[in-house]
Amino acid sequence: MENNGSIKVVPLGGLGEIGKNITAIEYEDEIIVIDCGIAFPDEEMHGVDLVIPDITYLKNNAEKVKGIFLTHGHEDHIGSLPYILKQLNLPIYGTKLTLGLIENKLKEHYMLSDCELHNVNAGDVIELQNLKIEFIRVTHSIADSCAIAIHSPLGVILHTGDFKIDFTPIDGLVMDLERISNLGKEGVMLLMADSTNVEREGHTISEKAIGKTLTRIFSNAQGRVIVATFASNIHRIQQIVDASVMYGRKIVFSGRSMENISQVAMDLGYLHILEDYIIGIDDMHNYSNKDITIITTGSQGEPMAGLARIAFATHRKLAIEPEDLYIISASPIPGNEKLISRVINELFKKGAEVIYEDLEEVHVSGHAYQEELKLIHALVHPKYFMPVHGEYRHLRHHAKLAQKLGMQDKDIFTMETGQVLELTKEEAKVTGKVHTGSVFVDGLGVGDVGSIVLRDRKLLAEDGMLTIVVTLERESYSIIAGPDIITRGFVYAKESDELINEVKEIVRNELNKCLDNRIIEWYVLKSNMKKSVERYLYRKTKRNPIILAIIMEI
Amino acid sequence: MENNGSIKVVPLGGLGEIGKNITAIEYEDEIIVIDCGIAFPDEEMHGVDLVIPDITYLKNNAEKVKGIFLTHGHEDHIGSLPYILKQLNLPIYGTKLTLGLIENKLKEHYMLSDCELHNVNAGDVIELQNLKIEFIRVTHSIADSCAIAIHSPLGVILHTGDFKIDFTPIDGLVMDLERISNLGKEGVMLLMADSTNVEREGHTISEKAIGKTLTRIFSNAQGRVIVATFASNIHRIQQIVDASVMYGRKIVFSGRSMENISQVAMDLGYLHILEDYIIGIDDMHNYSNKDITIITTGSQGEPMAGLARIAFATHRKLAIEPEDLYIISASPIPGNEKLISRVINELFKKGAEVIYEDLEEVHVSGHAYQEELKLIHALVHPKYFMPVHGEYRHLRHHAKLAQKLGMQDKDIFTMETGQVLELTKEEAKVTGKVHTGSVFVDGLGVGDVGSIVLRDRKLLAEDGMLTIVVTLERESYSIIAGPDIITRGFVYAKESDELINEVKEIVRNELNKCLDNRIIEWYVLKSNMKKSVERYLYRKTKRNPIILAIIMEI
Repeated sequence: MENNGSIKVVPLGGLGEIGKNITAIEYEDEIIVIDCGIAFPDEEMHGVDLVIPDITYLKNNAEKVKGIFLTHGHEDHIGSLPYILKQLNLPIYGTKLTLGLIENKLKEHYMLSDCELHNVNAGDVIELQNLKIEFIRVTHSIADSCAIAIHSPLGVILHTGDFKIDFTPIDGLVMDLERISNLGKEGVMLLMADSTNVEREGHTISEKAIGKTLTRIFSNAQGRVIVATFASNIHRIQQIVDASVMYGRKIVFSGRSMENISQVAMDLGYLHILEDYIIGIDDMHNYSNKDITIITTGSQGEPMAGLARIAFATHRKLAIEPEDLYIISASPIPGNEKLISRVINELFKKGAEVIYEDLEEVHVSGHAYQEELKLIHALVHPKYFMPVHGEYRHLRHHAKLAQKLGMQDKDIFTMETGQVLELTKEEAKVTGKVHTGSVFVDGLGVGDVGSIVLRDRKLLAEDGMLTIVVTLERESYSIIAGPDIITRGFVYAKESDELINEVKEIVRNELNKCLDNRIIEWYVLKSNMKKSVERYLYRKTKRNPIILAIIMEI
Repeated sequence: MENNGSIKVVPLGGLGEIGKNITAIEYEDEIIVIDCGIAFPDEEMHGVDLVIPDITYLKNNAEKVKGIFLTHGHEDHIGSLPYILKQLNLPIYGTKLTLGLIENKLKEHYMLSDCELHNVNAGDVIELQNLKIEFIRVTHSIADSCAIAIHSPLGVILHTGDFKIDFTPIDGLVMDLERISNLGKEGVMLLMADSTNVEREGHTISEKAIGKTLTRIFSNAQGRVIVATFASNIHRIQQIVDASVMYGRKIVFSGRSMENISQVAMDLGYLHILEDYIIGIDDMHNYSNKDITIITTGSQGEPMAGLARIAFATHRKLAIEPEDLYIISASPIPGNEKLISRVINELFKKGAEVIYEDLEEVHVSGHAYQEELKLIHALVHPKYFMPVHGEYRHLRHHAKLAQKLGMQDKDIFTMETGQVLELTKEEAKVTGKVHTGSVFVDGLGVGDVGSIVLRDRKLLAEDGMLTIVVTLERESYSIIAGPDIITRGFVYAKESDELINEVKEIVRNELNKCLDNRIIEWYVLKSNMKKSVERYLYRKTKRNPIILAIIMEI
């Protein structure tokens, strides 16, 4: 039984990057997958909407894969499901809210009826042939979050999922530290733990603290209160609702994801609002401004989401009104700082009041700080440790934290996506690397935008393009139409007449030189034209537009 | 004497934006300009290198403009000079270091000999016909910084420039609070004050504190220490040098601006290094690693600067070595967070140690926090107040701070670039707006990239482009070559054969339909082709590439 002796842990995404969390765990002829998230494109990925993981490894082992087990319902953990399930239709296991969010998503892709969803509760254990998958309650910035313990014949692997330790969560459902502690007592082979906030000292504050701040802010509000937050942060929304109800305000949900997710959360019993406190956006005119709270999307300053649309007056139904108070109850995700700032500036410019994290405690992170991480390490005291969920700097600092707590360097595995950690009863080591990667979703295309397309988009964005078209007659070796020059994104047309005429002259000379010598191979003609024009343009403008040379032959 | 009664303050840049600081102050037939900075392009400004102010207003009043008075040598205050002086050659007034940095810049533009530079010292007063311009020492993150007081027959305008109140500056030259206090006692008509850090509570720490942290970090370093910081932060560099000398380390300056500015600062006596402590980058091999400090550019993660080149192994002379310790002694300028994070991750990945602001006190801001601002307001207690140097949110909060300190709303002017504040003995009010704006520098082009070019670059970046070329014979109303289709940045060529063939078919049909009806107007043919192709591509891909339709006619 050659494989009997080892279990493999294969992160297919999420290490050394933000988002796209997905991990395969393999023992004999069983593979389970933990989470299946998306990443958001960075600024180099022009035009890309989403980034999903390359699951070649899972497809190559399709017969072994038993299911996808989800820790919680955030996009970076469930967002790739519609795309991945089209490639490999697997059973999905998750808690009620997580599945509710997924159903919504699968409906939009017209594939809900083809998918197999299994509802689990915190505490449940799914028994496969050799592996047992246990869901353990944690606290996080979305309700119904779990850690996952994988019980194998070789030992236990504990994956924390995303968590913080909130001793006073809004739903009263505290993290199951007892179970985690018991697992530690029985012996955990490998701990995989959230590294997001490992650079932050101390302890996160409780979600409940935000409620107090909100209540105080609401008590002074004279007009409407408009709160932008993450649609998935049900507990935050509950607190906004509670503060509103306290001051007799009706609630309006605005923005597609806010409307969808709040509805799912209410239907499933995660969000509690007396029915007559919810009003439609079209019924607002029946109430005075001081009796209205609007909960909207756009807390990241996204140009197409609710808050930015209100600020820049492009919202179909909402406009800034006197005495409006805007609260941005969120932190900027790295990269979004300027977008948010733009929205804040615009709101201020139009005379509104705006409260955000820099000014008041209106947001708290959902990821454990150093002291919380230390507690988990102390309770679990695993044999081996793999930091997960973070950029490389976070993984590295999490490794250092584990060392400070007494672990030996050799027992800590700071890995990259695709590396394979293989564990036996005796040892753990990195034994290889599997194919992984990023697949770009752009519009309807999945994977049809790759590095060449992106490189061209980058070049086009930098300096635009210049197209040269000329029609040649093969028999007479002569130019019979053109050269025509068309540019986009290069220079102002009206200021470039001289430049363009000069380019035409260069093209003509270059072509005639070739044609006089009876050279009519397109690739030579094109390449000579391009080179001359490129040189000329760079000398004149220090720019390198993409040059397309097109020869029509008759 | 119709103008006798009023003085105009016209911010031509810097309000409601970061950077591009420039203000005109006009009394009778005299205009003086304070600062002349650049802004950096935001991510929407594809391919733009720099943003400079539109100085139409100054050009229209050229005979009045007496000179440019500079508060300090940061790029956002002096960076536009080479471009502006080409449009309007004005005398420049500034302190020694500020002028030293400008000389450097003007030399690079081959225009130093054409410019008139006047060296002033803190405390100096430049007397024009009606206006007196007084330079007052402040502390900031660059040496030799000044506030500027404009004495006019109507009263005093005090412009703080950029400042913090550092009671223990590295050069011992404390801010001249006494003079500022005296001005306050005599009566200040208008205060214009730095708003950058108005959202931060408390007081900045002294630059000196960073020296202590650096010394402690240096004491533990086993290999080379590589510090990335702003080249203009001479005092920071002095402290890095001092810590190096304390541990017997030689200093290497790396990066063009670091080499240039440190040389200027040494030549002018602002940076003190024993000569044999400076070594060239090519002499490093003569020393052991623990005897070397490298001070480099790239603290913002800029891909082309020193630090990123070291991290990504594209530096010509420097590579990561074992036991290297990297210190990023700077804060991310908003928008640069991800660039810096990328460099940090790469350094960690390659096994180096990295220390940055999140982990240690290795940077301090050069802009006053709330308590410092309050002190200035209290000392100056001006009649009117205009917050400057900040995004709109900062200006707004600075206005609120002034209100809290007792000023009346009507005496506070939260303005936008281009608005004119007119002050008489009796009152102050906004009386108009002058033409202002942003001029884009792209390569050698100044102002030849505008909104249309940027819009096209944005579209090209999003979805790329598709070019249709066809040659028609006018006489026979027939297609004699093409249609040819070329795409860039749209889809993978190899995956798009079917799509492209379909596009050709659509173009052929559309053209033949027109030609059969004897329609040969280019604009009709082109527009019909484009529309059909656009519709087809969007339906198939949900993308909107720029479509160029080119018809050659013979």
